[in-house]
Amino acid sequence: MVTQLAHSDGVNTRFALANPLGTYTFDQLPLQHAGLFGPVTLAYETWGTLNATGDNAILIVHALTGNSHAYDAEHPDDPKAAWWNLLIGPGRPFDTSRYFVICSNVLGSCYGSTGPSSIDPRSGRLYGMRFPIITIRDMVHAQRRLLEHLGVRELAMVAGGSIGGQQALEWAVTYPTLVRNVVVVAATAALTAQAVAFSEVGRQAFMMDPRWQGGNYAPGQGPEAGLAIARMLAMITYQSEEAMELRFARRPARSRGIATPSGAADLGSRFDVESYLYYQGQSLVQRFDANSYLYISRAMDLYDVSEDYPSLEAALQRLRSRALFIGIRSDFLFPAARVRWLADQVRSCGGDATYVELDSPHGHDAFLKEWEQMTSALDLIKE
Amino acid sequence: MVTQLAHSDGVNTRFALANPLGTYTFDQLPLQHAGLFGPVTLAYETWGTLNATGDNAILIVHALTGNSHAYDAEHPDDPKAAWWNLLIGPGRPFDTSRYFVICSNVLGSCYGSTGPSSIDPRSGRLYGMRFPIITIRDMVHAQRRLLEHLGVRELAMVAGGSIGGQQALEWAVTYPTLVRNVVVVAATAALTAQAVAFSEVGRQAFMMDPRWQGGNYAPGQGPEAGLAIARMLAMITYQSEEAMELRFARRPARSRGIATPSGAADLGSRFDVESYLYYQGQSLVQRFDANSYLYISRAMDLYDVSEDYPSLEAALQRLRSRALFIGIRSDFLFPAARVRWLADQVRSCGGDATYVELDSPHGHDAFLKEWEQMTSALDLIKE
Repeated sequence: MVTQLAHSDGVNTRFALANPLGTYTFDQLPLQHAGLFGPVTLAYETWGTLNATGDNAILIVHALTGNSHAYDAEHPDDPKAAWWNLLIGPGRPFDTSRYFVICSNVLGSCYGSTGPSSIDPRSGRLYGMRFPIITIRDMVHAQRRLLEHLGVRELAMVAGGSIGGQQALEWAVTYPTLVRNVVVVAATAALTAQAVAFSEVGRQAFMMDPRWQGGNYAPGQGPEAGLAIARMLAMITYQSEEAMELRFARRPARSRGIATPSGAADLGSRFDVESYLYYQGQSLVQRFDANSYLYISRAMDLYDVSEDYPSLEAALQRLRSRALFIGIRSDFLFPAARVRWLADQVRSCGGDATYVELDSPHGHDAFLKEWEQMTSALDLIKE
Repeated sequence: MVTQLAHSDGVNTRFALANPLGTYTFDQLPLQHAGLFGPVTLAYETWGTLNATGDNAILIVHALTGNSHAYDAEHPDDPKAAWWNLLIGPGRPFDTSRYFVICSNVLGSCYGSTGPSSIDPRSGRLYGMRFPIITIRDMVHAQRRLLEHLGVRELAMVAGGSIGGQQALEWAVTYPTLVRNVVVVAATAALTAQAVAFSEVGRQAFMMDPRWQGGNYAPGQGPEAGLAIARMLAMITYQSEEAMELRFARRPARSRGIATPSGAADLGSRFDVESYLYYQGQSLVQRFDANSYLYISRAMDLYDVSEDYPSLEAALQRLRSRALFIGIRSDFLFPAARVRWLADQVRSCGGDATYVELDSPHGHDAFLKEWEQMTSALDLIKE
């Protein structure tokens, strides 16, 4: 689904999706920590039809290395064709026969939206590390501009997992009167110290790669080995001990066809889990930009829903949406206990919050795998 | 306690301990996977006196980046002066008034024992990646040679945590009639897929560092940035979400005095947990050799107590020692449930095994921190 194209204009197209995307460009966005920034382009896809009153829209928000392709109308039953494919479509939880479903590539990413691999029109050069610090709130503000452009007056729902869940939560806090329902999956009020630590180890691995060049690498010349290592680490944190034991245990690799990121030979033998991680690392490098990874993962770390409010309660008291929080039993990046705690806090602030836990061994990634449980959970918040 | 010295002879002394070490060199050791290897030097320390029958010895086995300095007789009450300092000494669990306590630097390490940073006498050059693959069993066989040299005929006890626990277990299986008691702390029959995966990400991070040079770096010219990143990751896995939350939560760094391993600037801010990890990375680089890290961590991955036996049961049925298994509630590298399971297996094979769980938030590292609980646990196996 991803094609590597040459750079053509201010919008990064190296990692552009093959299917046609809508794009919307606006002049400037006030950033939370970095002043006015622009122009900003968001790439997006939509499914279904917006009604005359502009209030049947559902905004779907993707995860760290995701993109706008949440649904594939041409291959609606292939779970690999789009990241929430089996949850979207006629009669499905995000029902395209009733709702106007929108998914946009987030600010800072590399699938058609403005990010560090875009060209800065003021200089004619790639932003690289001259790209400003962006936050979850900035991503939400940018989405708000896109929705205005599309004629959306009120959101029936905002839903996302992981960093998408952080954005969904931020939507409900920042724009309480615009969001009727919010679904926060595998996301919490703020990352744990452990999650920040994992995130930083991954970033250091590719910033140490000489090909990173202080962030000023040319397209296609980035820190591939380092980014592959960051991805290997991230893939461990997206799974669980239980899932990896079920899937790999201590089996030897079936093939040694994939080179290690460092290029070094295997030391003694190769385990299947290692082979799998090399493959995952290599795959990400071919489809994602290192600096986008840097900026978006840092936005995750920096996010705290209470920022700029007197307290967490003050932030959560703003919610007017009906809220569904979905935790995952085996998630150690966004522990279920912390998702549940957040739902409890919303309720104790007078909000309407339901908590559901996916009983899955698949760790954080379960929100991209447990179709039946996700469908049942989303049933609880149907209008 | 560690002084960096110039290379002087076949024994690596760059990371040699300042206090006087005993060393024992023997001509050759048959390795499990790599034929005859030698000469082999082991550096060691001893405390207490061996009795005339040679059967009051306790062998203490250190963890991955540890060394022979388990006890500091000059500073016996300083927990930082030696890694099991408060457990060793007159009247303590490893009672030097009754026992002859020995701790040797493992084969492959860099604190005086033969490892990849030693000089290969055949070529006059550092071994580097010409060092053979070594295993836990090889480490145990080398220790056996040292004990023979010291006149030890039977071990009252072998005890260690983490890779030291793997060696203790291997001692009891390989030499059942020589070990009266065995203490296996925070170690299991074999690493989980997740633990192998974390281990490999760390190794890739420094093998990717151009200064690694295929393992042929000169002393003091190693892959410092990469090794620091590997250590950062390892330090996360030695702790727990709970411990890191208690210690760091989301506090900003108190100081930004330490450079990041990559040298890149902070993106937006620096969390205290990041600052701590940079410090830990930098500290390890100053006291440990990257290739030793590579070989010893791989030995951990490769270890499976059942290797070369028809089954796990066949291996565990060999035990004649009284066995104490100590798990740690919050350990996610060697999960308590797996330590307990191993104790159960030993019992179901007819062995005498006790399981104790440390109720600690400190994760894997608790065996180096929970002095009172460790002391109570070790009371259970007193002779």
